[in-house]
Amino acid sequence: MTKTLSVNLGSSTLKWRLFEMPDEKQVASGLVDFFDNTKAKITVKYGDKKAERTFDEKLSLKDAITILMDELRRLKLVKDLHEIAGVGHRVVAGGEVFKESVVITKDVLKQIDDLDVFAPLHNHVEVGGIELFRQLMPWTTQVAVFDSAFHQTMPEENYLYGIPYDFHEKYGARKYGAHGTSVRYVSKHAAKVLQRPLEDLRLIVMHLGAGSSITAVSKGKSLDTSMGFTPLDGLIMNTRSGQVDASLVTYLIKKLNLKNADEMLNILNNESGLLGISGFSDDQRELKKLASTNPRARLALNMFANRVVKFVGSYIALMDGVDALIFTGGVGENSFEMREQIMSHFGYVGATIDKTKNESGNKEIDVSAADAKVKTLVVPTNEELMIARDVYKRLL
Amino acid sequence: MTKTLSVNLGSSTLKWRLFEMPDEKQVASGLVDFFDNTKAKITVKYGDKKAERTFDEKLSLKDAITILMDELRRLKLVKDLHEIAGVGHRVVAGGEVFKESVVITKDVLKQIDDLDVFAPLHNHVEVGGIELFRQLMPWTTQVAVFDSAFHQTMPEENYLYGIPYDFHEKYGARKYGAHGTSVRYVSKHAAKVLQRPLEDLRLIVMHLGAGSSITAVSKGKSLDTSMGFTPLDGLIMNTRSGQVDASLVTYLIKKLNLKNADEMLNILNNESGLLGISGFSDDQRELKKLASTNPRARLALNMFANRVVKFVGSYIALMDGVDALIFTGGVGENSFEMREQIMSHFGYVGATIDKTKNESGNKEIDVSAADAKVKTLVVPTNEELMIARDVYKRLL
Repeated sequence: MTKTLSVNLGSSTLKWRLFEMPDEKQVASGLVDFFDNTKAKITVKYGDKKAERTFDEKLSLKDAITILMDELRRLKLVKDLHEIAGVGHRVVAGGEVFKESVVITKDVLKQIDDLDVFAPLHNHVEVGGIELFRQLMPWTTQVAVFDSAFHQTMPEENYLYGIPYDFHEKYGARKYGAHGTSVRYVSKHAAKVLQRPLEDLRLIVMHLGAGSSITAVSKGKSLDTSMGFTPLDGLIMNTRSGQVDASLVTYLIKKLNLKNADEMLNILNNESGLLGISGFSDDQRELKKLASTNPRARLALNMFANRVVKFVGSYIALMDGVDALIFTGGVGENSFEMREQIMSHFGYVGATIDKTKNESGNKEIDVSAADAKVKTLVVPTNEELMIARDVYKRLL
Repeated sequence: MTKTLSVNLGSSTLKWRLFEMPDEKQVASGLVDFFDNTKAKITVKYGDKKAERTFDEKLSLKDAITILMDELRRLKLVKDLHEIAGVGHRVVAGGEVFKESVVITKDVLKQIDDLDVFAPLHNHVEVGGIELFRQLMPWTTQVAVFDSAFHQTMPEENYLYGIPYDFHEKYGARKYGAHGTSVRYVSKHAAKVLQRPLEDLRLIVMHLGAGSSITAVSKGKSLDTSMGFTPLDGLIMNTRSGQVDASLVTYLIKKLNLKNADEMLNILNNESGLLGISGFSDDQRELKKLASTNPRARLALNMFANRVVKFVGSYIALMDGVDALIFTGGVGENSFEMREQIMSHFGYVGATIDKTKNESGNKEIDVSAADAKVKTLVVPTNEELMIARDVYKRLL
């Protein structure tokens, strides 16, 4: 039995899961929270237990990984760290270079670092993390799993923008998409639930969370996706605007007396979306509580739903129909109200849902009405397991 | 019998049509072309005849209107200019001030001028034209007909962007849309063709030309439309990009070493779209001719079709179905190939077309297949007639 570690390193957290492969058994999961770099907390969950250690001082990433490895031994989650044969790293931007997961070499690491222009907040950090894991667990195979890789199958007419053609060739200006690992996992799993080969299916995956995207998956491949050059584009998100008229960027820079376009981009990324519309919260649960009394909370949720409906509709047309609609991500998995609001628009393709099933609270469930012609599923995403599979495949 | 003049004044042309109302009989139509202000040509078409006068010198707008009025008399299209009781002016931007056509007063004229921020290339020019017509035909009722007015019925959740709410209140940052007069005419006419009350119908109007937009018309009202804060947004057009990731604006400003965001906006408005993708032409007829041998001509057309398909699909979902799809505008009325390419995606709602009918070359035609559940119509637009109706209504 081989163990693999799936690592998701963000700007202030390190999330991880330890799997036993090929059984896909989750041994443990956890979080290192660096907060604002003045303290830290390391949490390990295993079985129904939880171990926590807090640090009232700055903890370096190297310290955190070392402590984490000690914890794995101390809690007897591994006898020997050498049981962990591979570590898979979530990498946000793979550009056009990486069309699938790869074993990390020195060259690969340099390439990931160079792709930093497409994810300034991510790739540098991830490269730093990978280097530390290589140093601290030199016996492991390190694999990079890219959020963008799954979308590399999109045809040119879907990934290009209506801008001068050479901007793509010269500057990489195109749609890359994100959430690819999630969508890949969820669509594979949905095919199993539907008991049909993925290659025969037209699926639409709604990954709805703090960041949200919709992907049209045709024959197991990404045909089109709502996120664009960056994850700003597409749907309305917690603090991201999603699609706006490009003219509005210029117009608001002037009206707001901003120094440059980057300041506008900051507003669109961090002060917009549900937060900007409601004026007080980026949390759908909170907005939902106030929706009946606060018109702007209601408006924010309506606008969110509305954009989902339109993207789903656009992809149904792109594929001339659809076999199943799939909800995943924090909101997609947990908000039956949002699912109901969205699904009230798809009677015309026979995608109707069963109210009782939808409200049952089951994590993984087929919520389709008995007479539905198009299935609607809720499938909890598991990017970490997808990463573990990609790592395990590359160990053999 | 009353005559009304419909005027469409652009930056280098003045298009007009003279109608006999309420019979809606077109008496004459014409064009004043100012070219680059070094020469001019005044064309008048009436019956199957055509009169042309050319000028090898700069012609002022005032001169042009005076000569035009002389021509109307000389060609006996009017006995006396006083037969013309009203003049209707196409105005691009009506903002949130004008929700329908209005009789022009001094105050209205000032308001139109103030709305210039939303259409820098248009409103000033139009105000200048209106002032001249008031001066030269002081007995006429002048009416402003706004391109944006029809879209003022859109609900808040469709016209707002996912940006901070007060940007709308303070700076008018919202979706306004365009082509409203065309869509209003076409949807009214489609209801007549379908022999059903407009109030019972869910229509999608594809106005496809040099500038293109898609509008969802529900119960006779605009529910949503693809153009946004400005006519840059939405579909890929002749030289306009349509939707792009806002981050791309910032990114390309840096990569292209542009001085400011306005330069980027100029590229997106004038060097993008079909022209930018193909690299050589913004004319669909030319691209079509070369599509079989030139991959970028093919790509440009595919991308155009693709965006239309997605917008139509998104509006079908928004309305939970559709009763008829309507093609209008230069491309929508004339390119059966583009209609066929677009309509190959809508079998799932039963919107199939009859190949022979579609290729018949008839200007106004129901191209639906015999067993189609959703009708597909080609309806030639006539914004000038819609303007004439609005003027005539305000004369009574």
